[in-house]
Amino acid sequence: MKNYWDFYLTERIVFGNGSIMRLDAVLKRLKAQNLLLITDQGITKSGLTTKVAGLLQDWGYQLIVYDQAVPEPPVEKAVECYEFAKAQMKIDAIIGLGGGSSIDLAKIVALLLAQGGHPRDYFGENAIDHPIAPLIAIPTTAGTGSEVTSVAVVTDTENNIKVGISNNYLRPSVALLDPELTLELPPYVSACSGIDALSHAIEAYMAKDFKYIQAEGEILFQGSNPISDTFALQAIELLYHNLVTAVQQGTNLEARSNMLLGSLFAGIAFSNAGTALAHALAYPIGGAAKSPHGEITGLLLPYVMMFNAEVQGKKMSLIAEAFHLNCSQLESRQQSLLVADKVLELLKSIGLPTKLSSIGVKNESLPGIAEKALQIDRLIRNNPRVPTKEGLIALLEDAY
Amino acid sequence: MKNYWDFYLTERIVFGNGSIMRLDAVLKRLKAQNLLLITDQGITKSGLTTKVAGLLQDWGYQLIVYDQAVPEPPVEKAVECYEFAKAQMKIDAIIGLGGGSSIDLAKIVALLLAQGGHPRDYFGENAIDHPIAPLIAIPTTAGTGSEVTSVAVVTDTENNIKVGISNNYLRPSVALLDPELTLELPPYVSACSGIDALSHAIEAYMAKDFKYIQAEGEILFQGSNPISDTFALQAIELLYHNLVTAVQQGTNLEARSNMLLGSLFAGIAFSNAGTALAHALAYPIGGAAKSPHGEITGLLLPYVMMFNAEVQGKKMSLIAEAFHLNCSQLESRQQSLLVADKVLELLKSIGLPTKLSSIGVKNESLPGIAEKALQIDRLIRNNPRVPTKEGLIALLEDAY
Ligand SMILES: [Fe+2]
Ligand SMILES: [Fe+2]
Repeated sequence: MKNYWDFYLTERIVFGNGSIMRLDAVLKRLKAQNLLLITDQGITKSGLTTKVAGLLQDWGYQLIVYDQAVPEPPVEKAVECYEFAKAQMKIDAIIGLGGGSSIDLAKIVALLLAQGGHPRDYFGENAIDHPIAPLIAIPTTAGTGSEVTSVAVVTDTENNIKVGISNNYLRPSVALLDPELTLELPPYVSACSGIDALSHAIEAYMAKDFKYIQAEGEILFQGSNPISDTFALQAIELLYHNLVTAVQQGTNLEARSNMLLGSLFAGIAFSNAGTALAHALAYPIGGAAKSPHGEITGLLLPYVMMFNAEVQGKKMSLIAEAFHLNCSQLESRQQSLLVADKVLELLKSIGLPTKLSSIGVKNESLPGIAEKALQIDRLIRNNPRVPTKEGLIALLEDAY
Repeated sequence: MKNYWDFYLTERIVFGNGSIMRLDAVLKRLKAQNLLLITDQGITKSGLTTKVAGLLQDWGYQLIVYDQAVPEPPVEKAVECYEFAKAQMKIDAIIGLGGGSSIDLAKIVALLLAQGGHPRDYFGENAIDHPIAPLIAIPTTAGTGSEVTSVAVVTDTENNIKVGISNNYLRPSVALLDPELTLELPPYVSACSGIDALSHAIEAYMAKDFKYIQAEGEILFQGSNPISDTFALQAIELLYHNLVTAVQQGTNLEARSNMLLGSLFAGIAFSNAGTALAHALAYPIGGAAKSPHGEITGLLLPYVMMFNAEVQGKKMSLIAEAFHLNCSQLESRQQSLLVADKVLELLKSIGLPTKLSSIGVKNESLPGIAEKALQIDRLIRNNPRVPTKEGLIALLEDAY
């Protein structure tokens, strides 16, 4: 049994409507003058790149803009961006503006700026052993929590696989969250990213207690602890009650603000506690289906909750409370099933699929998915119920 | 009205029984080899200095020990410690081990190590504009929260006044909390520091919302916001239910652990949200009485809560819930008074005074105290009810 937990936090979080105007104060405190702004074509098309670049120039900063981020960026993109910027000036700080991908790419470029080398050098566990360059993350979606997490997802084109580089040094120095920047998100993107955030919160909250995580050495995902629980439970309440409104009424600023706060809190929680079975299964399924990550984790979440229903007690009743369900009279397993059912209803309300068969997964691939998921030890060991291959196949059949 | 909040956090928090053994891993990550350990005579007499120094030497670190910290250390102590260490070797990191005073002294020495000069140079607001040297704070009391706060209290011997140097750069890089180190604390110290932590939590939680704090420029204490509220409410629950046991059964490890976690959470909350009227009044009273800080803030807390009872609503009912009181049928003001009364009872249970007359404050000094407190704008503006001089005198008479 382990007696301690170890929690990493972003040093500074700025949150609020119009807080993009705080960027100047943030940069001044970092004493940064020469900046690299990393974003993507969608952000540029929406006019936001021009707006932020204009502000930075008005404030007197030197700026290089790179707006070629793409989802799960190929590692070559990071090298390209790094070389592009380095050739022009010495960069003091990087701003990652956009969805999870822009921020993830910014993390890798900040790593190269500080330590040189190639992204592939950092694939192994604990391969990063120095702070990255100062990085300010400004999310425009409410989902990945990348603005505060230790994870960057990239594509290793050489081996044609998705790689998650995870290291506590990858956390941005500052997370700046302005809900007004998320108002334009289309409903489908809002739904996928919002349900992913809810799955982060629920998986982190229900993760095995840190005391019972068995692993050698320094581990990133440590199981739940008092700080991750505090953030995760708040996130669950915020996300569950605001997701439908954020999807149905994109310009509802209060719902957008609560979603952004919820995904931030979920990011703080899961980047320390870890996620669990829904995310372990989502990786091989992501290889078999073309759906966005959040569509897959969201689809799996209720089935994983049903699978875990046997072993959930007090904490599930606190989730039920956060959902504002009146079910304290039910016995523990029934409570878990009711909560899982509410998540299934939520998926339907926001128009997301609830069956693996409808996202192009083939029935004969289920055993292979179960097998691959079981190998992701850092997530599997977090799950409150120990999964077997047969158990996972039954779970996937249920979700099929 | 303000639209954003700005939150500063300690980068790394290590918590748990025996977590002192994690110090090696913490130092390795900071790449620190030459260390300065700052502590006090009490810690040395208890054998803890020898124990920690022994561990560090076994792990192969170069170490200088300075164990001359005193409560509210005179600024000369910081200079003395800085010169003492600097003469021997180049310091990579400082360890502050002890109560709030040892950690506060360590903060100032870390400031001098990074920026040179004299502590007096940093008395003004925003006078620190660079990170301090890497500092690991290891508290042995559960109270000040200094391990995560932006404040160091020192004595300016030249002008014979207590000065609080406050700046976000003063936060330690790492807070390492080992409940086992607090087992030996005598009941009176446990009581004073524990009730101070509760007053931090309640004042931060009830502080005016960040939207309504009126102040120019960059302010440290920003009023309550969603993160400070989350930590403060958890702290209130932990501290309220464990303080009596920690005082009455000093070796109860569970109560000690919950107190240490509660004071950590209160520190995170109040160092961003700020404290309010009880702390504003405590400063001039601290000049008039010889009591420890916590005895004074604790004594004032219920009277301040009664004073604020007029203007408290929803949040007070959540404190009542955290206290496990069943009073949702009461109207808001009655709830506030009931909660204040529970704090008064708590003071009695842990043997602390509940009247200013019993700690040596003179009745004729009350108007002067009210006047001086009103000048501490950074705390007064946080208070949910705007105090007048007459109002404060009535409050103090009540507490007399
Ligand atoms: Fe996810
Ligand atoms: Fe205090």
